This record gives sequence, C-alpha cells and structure tokens, in this order.
Amino acid sequence: MNMVELITKKKLGQELTEEEIRFFVRGAAEKTVPDYQLAAMLMAIRLQGMTARETTTLTLAMRDSGDVADLSAIPGVKVDKHSTGGVGDTTTLILAPLVAACGVPVAKMSGRGLGHTGGTLDKLESIAGLTVEESEEQFIRQVREIGVAVIGQTGTLAPADKTLYALRDVTATVDSLPLIASSVMSKKLASGADAIVLDVKTGSGAIMQTLEGSIELAQAMVDIGTLAGKPVTAIVTGMEQPLGTHVGNALEVKDAIDVLAGRTEGALKEVSLLLGSHMLVLADRADTPEQGRKLLEEALNSGAGLEKLRQMIRAQGGDPACCDDVSLLPRAAVIREVKAGVTGYAAEMDTMALGLAAQAMGAGRVRKTDALDYSVGFVLPVRIGDRVTSDTTLCMLHARSEEDADRAEAAIRAAIRFSDEPVQSPPLCYAIITKDGVKRFTE
Amino acid sequence: MNMVELITKKKLGQELTEEEIRFFVRGAAEKTVPDYQLAAMLMAIRLQGMTARETTTLTLAMRDSGDVADLSAIPGVKVDKHSTGGVGDTTTLILAPLVAACGVPVAKMSGRGLGHTGGTLDKLESIAGLTVEESEEQFIRQVREIGVAVIGQTGTLAPADKTLYALRDVTATVDSLPLIASSVMSKKLASGADAIVLDVKTGSGAIMQTLEGSIELAQAMVDIGTLAGKPVTAIVTGMEQPLGTHVGNALEVKDAIDVLAGRTEGALKEVSLLLGSHMLVLADRADTPEQGRKLLEEALNSGAGLEKLRQMIRAQGGDPACCDDVSLLPRAAVIREVKAGVTGYAAEMDTMALGLAAQAMGAGRVRKTDALDYSVGFVLPVRIGDRVTSDTTLCMLHARSEEDADRAEAAIRAAIRFSDEPVQSPPLCYAIITKDGVKRFTE
Repeated sequence: MNMVELITKKKLGQELTEEEIRFFVRGAAEKTVPDYQLAAMLMAIRLQGMTARETTTLTLAMRDSGDVADLSAIPGVKVDKHSTGGVGDTTTLILAPLVAACGVPVAKMSGRGLGHTGGTLDKLESIAGLTVEESEEQFIRQVREIGVAVIGQTGTLAPADKTLYALRDVTATVDSLPLIASSVMSKKLASGADAIVLDVKTGSGAIMQTLEGSIELAQAMVDIGTLAGKPVTAIVTGMEQPLGTHVGNALEVKDAIDVLAGRTEGALKEVSLLLGSHMLVLADRADTPEQGRKLLEEALNSGAGLEKLRQMIRAQGGDPACCDDVSLLPRAAVIREVKAGVTGYAAEMDTMALGLAAQAMGAGRVRKTDALDYSVGFVLPVRIGDRVTSDTTLCMLHARSEEDADRAEAAIRAAIRFSDEPVQSPPLCYAIITKDGVKRFTE
Repeated sequence: MNMVELITKKKLGQELTEEEIRFFVRGAAEKTVPDYQLAAMLMAIRLQGMTARETTTLTLAMRDSGDVADLSAIPGVKVDKHSTGGVGDTTTLILAPLVAACGVPVAKMSGRGLGHTGGTLDKLESIAGLTVEESEEQFIRQVREIGVAVIGQTGTLAPADKTLYALRDVTATVDSLPLIASSVMSKKLASGADAIVLDVKTGSGAIMQTLEGSIELAQAMVDIGTLAGKPVTAIVTGMEQPLGTHVGNALEVKDAIDVLAGRTEGALKEVSLLLGSHMLVLADRADTPEQGRKLLEEALNSGAGLEKLRQMIRAQGGDPACCDDVSLLPRAAVIREVKAGVTGYAAEMDTMALGLAAQAMGAGRVRKTDALDYSVGFVLPVRIGDRVTSDTTLCMLHARSEEDADRAEAAIRAAIRFSDEPVQSPPLCYAIITKDGVKRFTE
C-alpha cells in the first residue's frame, strides 16, 4: 500500500477501505507520511467527500492513534459535552457544576481558544491560582470526591487528529463535514466518556453557517457515536449572535457565576439548561429532558450549582472568592461605554467579526503561543430584535488601552446592522438529533 | 495576500487573478510557500480545474520564474518539438538531424526518462563519448556551425515548474490538464524557440488515455502558445502500442539510425515525417506539410539526414562510427528470442506496462538517481493487427541476466492480448490542432 494510490482513489471519488484509512492515519500520527501527501489527501476528502462508513472508520482510527482515557474507576454514567465553538459561549462553566450538583459525575477535558472562539481552559485560568493541569489519577480522584473536574487533556489523545487539524488550518480544509465530525468525535471517544451531548452551532459565528449543513454535521457525529457504542445527542443551537452577553475570559466567568447565582436570565442560561437536561437523560438521572430541566433548576435555585463551582475551583487550586464577589476577577485598564448612536432594531450580527474583535483586544490567540489578557473583552447587552435609541448602551468595552478600545468600538459597530423595521429574535434551538432521528423546531 | 486565501478560492471553484497565480508560483520557485500548501493547491486545481486564462497565466508565471534562453544569435526561425511522452518514441533523434538537413536550425533542449517513458538525453548518452551538457554559448555556436544540437537544459529553466512537477508525482496530481499544459509550455517557452510542434500522445501508454482528453490538452497548449505569441501546431498521435519496434536506450538509437539509413519503414518513420513536415511549415521552409514531407524524404534518401546526425554526434564529443555500424552500440549480456506461442491477431497492448517492463530491465529509472543500463530493452516487431502463429517471433529481449529476461518475458506476454478475429491496425494520427482549429482524421 502506498500513499499515492490512496490519494488517487479519493481523488477519483472512490471509497477507501478500513485498511487504507488506518494506513494514512497511522502515517499522520507517526509522521511517516509527509505533510504534502496528507495535505493532498485532505483536499481530496474536502472536495470528494467521504461515506458514513469512511467517516466512522477515520474517527476510530484517529481515536486509536493515541491514549484512550479509562474513567471506569468513577462510578456512574460519565456524560461529556462538546460544542463546535461559539462566541460568548460559556455553557461548560455553568453546566459542569450544575449537572454534578444533580449527582451525575462530570469528568471533562476541555480545550483552549483559537481563532474567533474562546476556550474553557483559558476562561478557568482567569481565576486566581486555578490550574487545569492534572494527571489522570488526580483527575479521577477529584471527580470521585466532588463529582466534577474540568481540565486539559491527560496523556496523548488522538495524535493523528492533532497532525491533521494543524494541517487543515493552513491548507483551507477546515470546512469539511467528515473532517470536522471525525476530529470532534475521535477526541471525545478518546477522552473516555460513556455518553456525549453535542452543541452544534449554526449561523454567522459557526463552523457550519447554514442550518442544513449543521444538521448534517450533527447527524454524522450521532451516527459515529452510535456505531462506536456511545449514545450521542446533538443539539443544533443558534450562533447568529454571541450566546451570552459577555465576551472575553474573565467576563465570561463572571457571566457564568451570574447565571449560577440566579442574577442573569437569557440565552446563555437557556442553552445551558437545554444541554444539561439532555446530559441528565443520557446519564439515566432523568427520564425526559423536561424532568432533567426541573432537576437543574432546583440545583440552580438552591445554590447547589454555585457551591459545586466553588468546590471545583478550590479542588483545582483556585480562590473561590470570585463566586461571591465577581469584582475580584481581573479588571481591564480601560472600561468604556459605547452608545448605539442610532434608532432602530438590531437586525443582524457578524458573530465571527465580534469574536475576532475580542481576539484583537487580547482575549484570544492569533498564534498558538500568544499570551492572553484575561481581563479584556466586551459586554454586549443588545440582542437581535431589540429596539435601541441613540442613547441606548450598545456595549461596554474592557480594553488594555484607549487605542484598543477605539479599534474594538469600530469593529463592533461594523459587525452589527440595524433596521428600521421590527426584527424577530432568532430561536435558540433549531433541532435535536439522536439515533432515533431529527426533531426540528423551526419551519 | 496569503496562501490559505488562494487555496480557499480555488477550492470553491473560483478563478484566480494573475497577481494571485504569480504569488504562489513565486512561492514555489523560491520555496517560500511550504510544500503542504502547494500540494493542497495542486489537488484543488486537479479537482476544480482552471480557466484558459488561468492556465496561460500559470504558464507565463512559471516561464518567468527562471532563465529564458535567448537564441536570437542563431539566424532563422528556431522550431522546437515536444512529445508528451511515449514508449519506443525516438522521433527527436530522427527529426532533429533531418529538419536541420533541410536548412532549418534545430536548437533543442531535451529531458531524461522517468517512469515508463524514455528520455532523449539518456538515449544519446548510450553513444560512446557523447555529452549532452553544454553552456548556452557552446549550444548556440554548435547550432550556428552545423545547424543542430540536442542537449540538456542550460541555466535554470522554469524552477517553479520543477518544484510543482516533483510534488505532482507524489500527490496524485499528474493527470490535470491545466497542470500538464502549463508544465510543458512553460519549459518550451523558456527554452527560447520561435515556434513549437507538439506531439500529444493518446492511448494506453499516454498521459491522456482518451482521444477527447488528448485533443483538449492539445487545444489548451496551442491556445497558450498563441497568447504568448509563438505559433504552435499540436498533432495527436496514437500510443496504443510502442511507436517504434525498439524499446530501450541503445536499441532506440539503432532504430533511429536504421530509419535515417533508409533501412526501416513503419510508424516511427511516418510520425517523424509528419511532425517534421509541420516543423518545416512553421519555420517557413515549406508552404504545406506535403511540401515539407517531400523535402524531408529527399534529405533522408540522399543520406543528408544521417550525415547531419554524424556531425551532431561528433560536435558533442561522441563517436559517429555507430551511424555506419550499429553493432558498435552497447550490447546486452543476454539476447533471447521469444516466440508468440499462440495463433491469432495482436489485438491490444498495455503500452504503459511495456514501458515499465523496459524500465524494470534497467532501461529506465524508478528514482531520479538510478543509473541506467543503456544496452537493455526489447525489440517488438509485432504490431496491433498483425497475425501471428505459434512460431512467430514475438520479441527479442536484451537483458542483463536470464532472470531479468524471464521477468521481462512474463511482463510482455501479459501486456499483449491476441484475438481470433482480425483486428484493424490503429491510425497513426488522430487530429491536428492549430490556432485555426481542430482537424480530425478519425470519426
């Protein structure tokens, strides 16, 4: 078997066998296949596609290319959650303690931000003293003791995916359904959970910008999970605008604490409860999502969720005082209120541009090695459909300097379009996909 | 401008601008764009295609990436000839002296064999003492003095093509019309000729295996030449079987000498006269191909062509005695006659397999650095349509060892199919393409 033959088959639109897929995935993990051949294969996959069978085989081959975490020492059904990446999306910081407070163990390995989307690990590190690096042993012990841990990867999970993911970024092959689905699912399957809830974003800030594309991607990942023997529920949620009103690391931690403290209503809370309710169903803690939601609301209202967050921060070496006084979180040098300056209805947002504006302020990385400023970002209280007048607060900028604030202000203004006519606010949830099929909530 | 944006455009099937094409070609020549990005771009071009405008721009950008030979010191119209690669195709060794003998200067830079096809330089080097390495100055002086020179590239012609060509070979992107056309034409335009005759092969041993694909490729190259201000005539000829009966370096030199000496008739001679007649037309030495053919036949019959070959060999340091005694050429250790062993009509040949059989005997390279055995190869007198009986000579093997001969015999037998029914012999010429259009000779 040689790589040129395999590229030729895919170039001609033919189906690769399991043996052939495992050959090139092993080559990617062990760096025995040169990058230029992997790049040609990735472009051939992007343009010719893969069958469901090929996508699943690719996923399992990437999972098997490295360590697979063993969480069997933790009693109960471990349910993981993954989002395909959004702006102002800090559901993990709300969900993980809330689901744990309902008695379901949450052993979660998260990632860092890259591009226009933030990363849970970066947000957590804005809490003084907190570490996200634990050994598998420490990780399992923490989940056994307090029911929840959110850390970085232990061991080497899916090294083939690491090679291919880095190459996709620089060869314009990110936007391929089989490559996205296999990348997400190989890491999720390697991190050892028994069941997975996926939040698949759709809209201007999402990897899939059309609803049909997002449903197709969700379906592909559910199918992979089913074939791999792990129940998966995928929920397609809107990313036409940032999910929470806060964008930036410490700002998003504040947003999560506000939700857990019962001070904040809105989309971020709603989507957290939605995802969490399906996690409780997959963990057999609730029979229906409605019952799951009731349990989560009780844990939220009783303060059990916030208490679980305090415990987790403490267990990971951080100071939980911020849970009771959010002003202890990092604070930016310049805080500026920006007025709408127009009268009308917020009609459209370029969510990716908003994410990139936060990145440019120092909240995200352009290169993997960039250092972050946890304090910066912005609060955008205006939602699509809201009516503003000239004097309404459009956003609050948290910046390192006046110049940064000027640039961010211009970028945010350019990313939001107002209309004279009333505008309907977009739905939060478009579809739920399980092994039993697709349930749509829009036309 | 960055490479990911350019790959994205081509991936989406959009047209690249001249500036964008020149950017990535410069990157290929100067090695500033990494191979994996070039590989992704090549696959995107292979699968999404290029417009005629893009293909011409790519060609000119590759031509301009290195030196462009200046042949203006040679009086007259310099006409070059290029073949897309065949088996047993040694037309250059016949044409170059024959056209020169008709008074048209032939300043030709040739290539080496790779894969299943031979290379003119390798064949020439099987003549004792002959060198194909000359400076541009020596090259021009030789053509001025005796009217003909066939050498390797002087200077650095089209280095961008060199990078891309090497990558195409290992990324399964050889079979792309715009990439083939631009590769051939960039080198031809850089080597300084005033007009070009192209021999585009079609059939089982050709880069384009269908007639329509071959005509399309021919048309693309004629268009490029027209846009670059150099008249090009492309002739689509058959490669359903080896062109000459001799395959292998010294064996093909013998075949060429036999044709020039008037001892051999057949396809090799016919195609040489066909290509040569169009060279004389482009050089304004003949008004019509028919008139050109008459001039070439006169030069052949008078011995002027063979005398020109003697002069060329002498000028390049070789011993011209082989022109009068072909037994002076390198001779293989084992010469074996192989009988047909069947009765029937030769119906089909896998010409690529025949080329690869010669390569495996030592006549061609598997890797660029492989040394050749000039003496080996085979003579295959049987042509498609010929009737054979059990005792007919199928071929004469010229091998390094009995084991090599055994392997070659098996490969050659497997590559030829016989039929009980009479079989029509395939045409030599399928179509002639000029800037004025396509003239077909078959239905």
